[in-house]
Amino acid sequence: MQRALDLAATGAFHRRGGNPRVGCVILDATGAVVGQGHHRGAGTPHAEVAALAVAGPAARGGTAVVTLEPCAHQGRTGPCADALIEAGIARVIFAQPDPNPLAAGGAARLRAAGVTVIGNVGADRAIMINSDWTFAQQHRRPWVRLKIASTLDGRVAAADGSSQWITSTAARADGHLLRARSDAVLAGTGTVLADNPRLTARTVPDSADQQPDQPLRVVFGTTEIPADAAVLDDSAETALLRTRSAPVALRTLRERGVSSVLIEGGPGVAATFLEAGLVDELISYIAPVLLGAGPAAVGDLGIWRIDDALRGEITDITSIGTGTERCARITTRLRTAAPTPDPQHPHSPHHEGDH
Amino acid sequence: MQRALDLAATGAFHRRGGNPRVGCVILDATGAVVGQGHHRGAGTPHAEVAALAVAGPAARGGTAVVTLEPCAHQGRTGPCADALIEAGIARVIFAQPDPNPLAAGGAARLRAAGVTVIGNVGADRAIMINSDWTFAQQHRRPWVRLKIASTLDGRVAAADGSSQWITSTAARADGHLLRARSDAVLAGTGTVLADNPRLTARTVPDSADQQPDQPLRVVFGTTEIPADAAVLDDSAETALLRTRSAPVALRTLRERGVSSVLIEGGPGVAATFLEAGLVDELISYIAPVLLGAGPAAVGDLGIWRIDDALRGEITDITSIGTGTERCARITTRLRTAAPTPDPQHPHSPHHEGDH
Repeated sequence: MQRALDLAATGAFHRRGGNPRVGCVILDATGAVVGQGHHRGAGTPHAEVAALAVAGPAARGGTAVVTLEPCAHQGRTGPCADALIEAGIARVIFAQPDPNPLAAGGAARLRAAGVTVIGNVGADRAIMINSDWTFAQQHRRPWVRLKIASTLDGRVAAADGSSQWITSTAARADGHLLRARSDAVLAGTGTVLADNPRLTARTVPDSADQQPDQPLRVVFGTTEIPADAAVLDDSAETALLRTRSAPVALRTLRERGVSSVLIEGGPGVAATFLEAGLVDELISYIAPVLLGAGPAAVGDLGIWRIDDALRGEITDITSIGTGTERCARITTRLRTAAPTPDPQHPHSPHHEGDH
Repeated sequence: MQRALDLAATGAFHRRGGNPRVGCVILDATGAVVGQGHHRGAGTPHAEVAALAVAGPAARGGTAVVTLEPCAHQGRTGPCADALIEAGIARVIFAQPDPNPLAAGGAARLRAAGVTVIGNVGADRAIMINSDWTFAQQHRRPWVRLKIASTLDGRVAAADGSSQWITSTAARADGHLLRARSDAVLAGTGTVLADNPRLTARTVPDSADQQPDQPLRVVFGTTEIPADAAVLDDSAETALLRTRSAPVALRTLRERGVSSVLIEGGPGVAATFLEAGLVDELISYIAPVLLGAGPAAVGDLGIWRIDDALRGEITDITSIGTGTERCARITTRLRTAAPTPDPQHPHSPHHEGDH
């Protein structure tokens, strides 16, 4: 299972079109490794199918070790449970149960065909590897992170609007890693007009496997942006969401297979998602800077008294950079309203769970 | 020297009327410990005199190990250098050279009397134990800390002014330790009128030696405060500084023997000291809370562009408390203007250096 999990964890920065990261190792009847594979994204073979292709006839009577319960549904590829049965696999050991109601049932299907099935082996790490995807499957919307880069007195820009740069090179590099790990990066039209960001993931460690597929760039709001905006260049895909509704935006992104969204501002967009109870996690970069004036990170939330404050729980405090470059990164889990199933989409779109 | 330093470090929360914390160990001619002592505050014997009193005639021909260069001046007590000479001490080993020009000269006086003198032994720890006092001696003003307790979006109160409580019990207990370690705690008249704080050090660990003498409470500003304000109760001394000038306030406090001031707000007072270049260190408690409105920690500093921002260096990032109580504490050293000697007071007031 350790090897299967390592395979699943390969290529953290590669988009999978809304599909989870899965690894599979095939052992023959004597326990020797005869095949392994991992899923490389929508439209490519699932991990089990890739591993079976390597194993060939040696899989007969053998064991499949896989990080996610094999799917039982027909997506863009056939059900993996059937492929395992046809290959003559005698035993399946999996880590995470499939959280997708449409894809689930793989274990039952395998058992019905006489295969021995053992689940929940190393499930914690498997769920961690696909935490955003798991959340999206269970709650029918992407996991939403809000990134804030502010001064010690809570300013995200100076009085004249200038904000480049409040934080250090080290903190910005960390922010690019956040982008690379997200399926989508969202900014409001106000931020696009003011800062003209590209919203691509850059300055990621220079390793062949670690070069990121670019996240989907998302512009939120109804104001027009100029055709020569950097966010519209050809370095990555861009979606223009001509809406001011956070739930509508998340529904649209979910339909595009997005499991995680990173919101990068500005204060109005942050307030819109926070007021809707649709921010799950806050990533705050705090620089050793004071401004005394300028906009705050979050716009009006309609909160008047301290008793009505939006409260969360800090899950991580990390020092980023050294010397005068040093910033603090504070990660906070917010207490969001429980997401309600989308009445427009009682079942998941067809390609979901097509892992 | 280790024992002398431990003696000096005793009773961190006891005021010393502007005097440093000093420890002394006396060895007889054979090297046996025959006396030890530490300074307990203005008007009480210096560490050397206290240790010599214990040692008695056994000190003759012996060694004095002391954490600060013995003083050579006549303060409320006689010069320690003379006391050591009279006791027949043959050798003096000290850690920190006296930074006070009025008290310095002890080593020279001892040498002139034929005593062997070795300095700078363990000086780093000795200076750390008295860092605020050392700064005050060298720069002729107290070390100034500014405490801020804010939300993740930089608010120090809600829109209606309510601020109790933004941070957790754990963070507030840490804040009381900060008060206990300061010679003075300062708040503006606006904060006194709005929050009616007592400004005393409470919730400090319940140990006989650790029960704090209360810091001097300081009210800054020209607005009248009511006679029944909590800050005027009889739980500690209070100074009403009827001025809006940060340098004037620090001069007054220095004349009262204050080596360190903790500024606890509000935004206007913070801005006054920051604009004057008179904040040395910022202690920021950041709670996992969002408000979207309400005052920021620091009032207008006259900064318009990001290039003119006040910048410092983070020296410590600490997690305070656990679970939903968890806050971040960020300590930042600010780049202050070099303090200029006070032309009104070319020499230190008479009681300074009376360690």
